[in-house]
Formats: sequence, C-alpha cells, structure tokens
Amino acid sequence: MTYDNAREALAAKIRYVKDFPEEGILFEDLTPVLADAEAFQLVVDELADACERFGAQLIGGLDARGFLLGSAVAYRLGLGILAIRKQGKLPPPVHTEEYQLEYGTAALEVPAGTGTDLDGVRVVLVDDVLATGGTLVAARKLLENCGATVAGHAVVLEVPGLGGRDRLGDSPLVVVNEPAAGDR
Amino acid sequence: MTYDNAREALAAKIRYVKDFPEEGILFEDLTPVLADAEAFQLVVDELADACERFGAQLIGGLDARGFLLGSAVAYRLGLGILAIRKQGKLPPPVHTEEYQLEYGTAALEVPAGTGTDLDGVRVVLVDDVLATGGTLVAARKLLENCGATVAGHAVVLEVPGLGGRDRLGDSPLVVVNEPAAGDR
Repeated sequence: MTYDNAREALAAKIRYVKDFPEEGILFEDLTPVLADAEAFQLVVDELADACERFGAQLIGGLDARGFLLGSAVAYRLGLGILAIRKQGKLPPPVHTEEYQLEYGTAALEVPAGTGTDLDGVRVVLVDDVLATGGTLVAARKLLENCGATVAGHAVVLEVPGLGGRDRLGDSPLVVVNEPAAGDR
Repeated sequence: MTYDNAREALAAKIRYVKDFPEEGILFEDLTPVLADAEAFQLVVDELADACERFGAQLIGGLDARGFLLGSAVAYRLGLGILAIRKQGKLPPPVHTEEYQLEYGTAALEVPAGTGTDLDGVRVVLVDDVLATGGTLVAARKLLENCGATVAGHAVVLEVPGLGGRDRLGDSPLVVVNEPAAGDR
C-alpha cells in the first residue's frame, strides 16, 4: 500500500489548478485520484462507511462527478445508485427541482411514473465537492418531494467560506478529507 | 434473487420512452436498472467480467452515464476509473479529441501534464449504450494519443442500425444485453 489512508491519497493525487473555472478560484481536480486504483478504493471505502452509518438504502449520485463516486459506493454496499440528473437528460415524465445559480437557474431531475419508487426510502447523497451546497440542497428537496428521506451527505472535499455546511443545516455530513471535523 | 441474470433484470427494469430526445426514437432509460440493487449488481458484474477478460488495467468511463457503470466496474476489479470528460469540464492542461455530431462537433478530454500517466496502460471503455459509436471511437483515439492501449469496449445496450459496431472495427466489444452475439 502506498497510502495509509484516504487523506494521504488525496494529498498525493489531487491536481490543483489556479484560476479555473474563473480567476481567483483554486480548482481541485479529483480525476487523478479516481484513476489511481489505491486512492480510488480508499476514498470510496470511506464514503461507503459514512453511507452505511447513515443507514443508506439507496445512494443518490449527483450529475456528473458524483456518479464517479456514488456508483462504486453503491456497489460496495450492495445497494442501487440513483442518478440525479441535470435537467433535460432524462425522458419524461420526471420529477424536477429548480435551484439558483450565481446567474440564472438550473434544475435536477429523477424519473417519475414507472421510474423508481422512492417512497419511504433512506437515501444518502454522494458528490465530490461541497461548495455552496446549492446542488445538494436541491437534490434533497427533489428526493423528499418524491417521498424519500435524505439521511445524510458524503463528499470528498469541502470548499470553506462558501456557506455550504450551513446551507445543509442539521442534515448529517461527512467530508472524507476532514475526518475529525467532518463527521457531525 | 429476483432475476436469474442481467438480461432478465434489464427486461424488467428499463424504462422505455417513445419519441425522446426526438420523434421516432425509442429511448431506453437505464436509471431504474441502476437504482435497483440486484439489477445494478448483475449488470456491473457482467461488465466487469468482460473488462477482466480484456485485460483491463484501468477503466475508462464516458461522461456522464458511463460514470454510473464504470466506477462500480473499476471498484469491483480493484482498478482506477479514468473519467473521460466532455469538453470544458476539466481545468487545463488537457488532452482533447474532437468528433462529429449530427450537427456540429463535440470533444472529449482527459487531464494532461501532472495528470494520470496513460503511457502503456491497457484501458477498457465502459458506457451505457452503443449507438453510432462516435463517442467511443473518439475516446479510443484520445487515449491512444496519450499512449494507452484500448483493449475493448463494454456496454449495456446496443441500438442496432446506426453503424456503431462497424465503427468500432476490430476492437473487442461486449454488450450485456446480447451475451451470445455481443462477445466477439
């Protein structure tokens, strides 16, 4: 084993890029982490442990980078992965939840009608990064409107100073890169 | 177990929607398959078996639905997952490969520079559906330009009549929903 834990793997493999997608932002690219077999397994296992503690019956993956983590987490736990899609990707009928972006709005969707029955299902949401939390909050509202319970959130990284943690409110959160403070 | 194999699970859980994304097209929505724990595992296991036969050292997942399958396949095999992104999602520097759409062009990207070293690596590409094959061929060219070998392709469904299989040429292909004819 090259790394003792997920934090070490992240420290070694994250690709930091300044001023992307706009000036002043330090982008943390997880692509090399996921492409490294050992780093990928360490990160997925920690996310999966969190999802298990939250009592997940289904993993919700956020389009698109959340898919790269949520799918493996679901497989590891013997659960299904619910793809929470950006608007326009799924055929009708769908359930939709709009949310605010810095400029304009976006929306998330899951299948309705003959799609997955979410009533009473405990879902844990998985994504790569917690930034403003806008997408995770919209995903939670979307699933709650379908009758599901969102039992927690599991992410790899948190960008501090954007209010994401506050926006999630009392809902449990685990951040892989901050094991001590992240579990609350 | 509810299903004997992946074909049965697909038959039971695919959501068919007429005239999406345009008139005359029967869209096969795999979202309910992936959200069903048993169906998801059956499909992932068949994809993983194919990737193992092809000698995969790394799984290449196509943005975005390929992520939902490739991540679990990689985890199952103890490999990493390389996210092959749509243009504009990754920070620079990147390797880019353009390809033709019905109207206009699109491009796929993977990190360059301090990103993952693909030289000499055997990659198997995973996606949900083989249609025209344009995206898979572009992904293969992209990885080959990075020094990788694309050892095969593993998909869940094939849309016949669009020339996808021909476009892949001699490169090995497994289609989960067509186990007899799909393995060549």
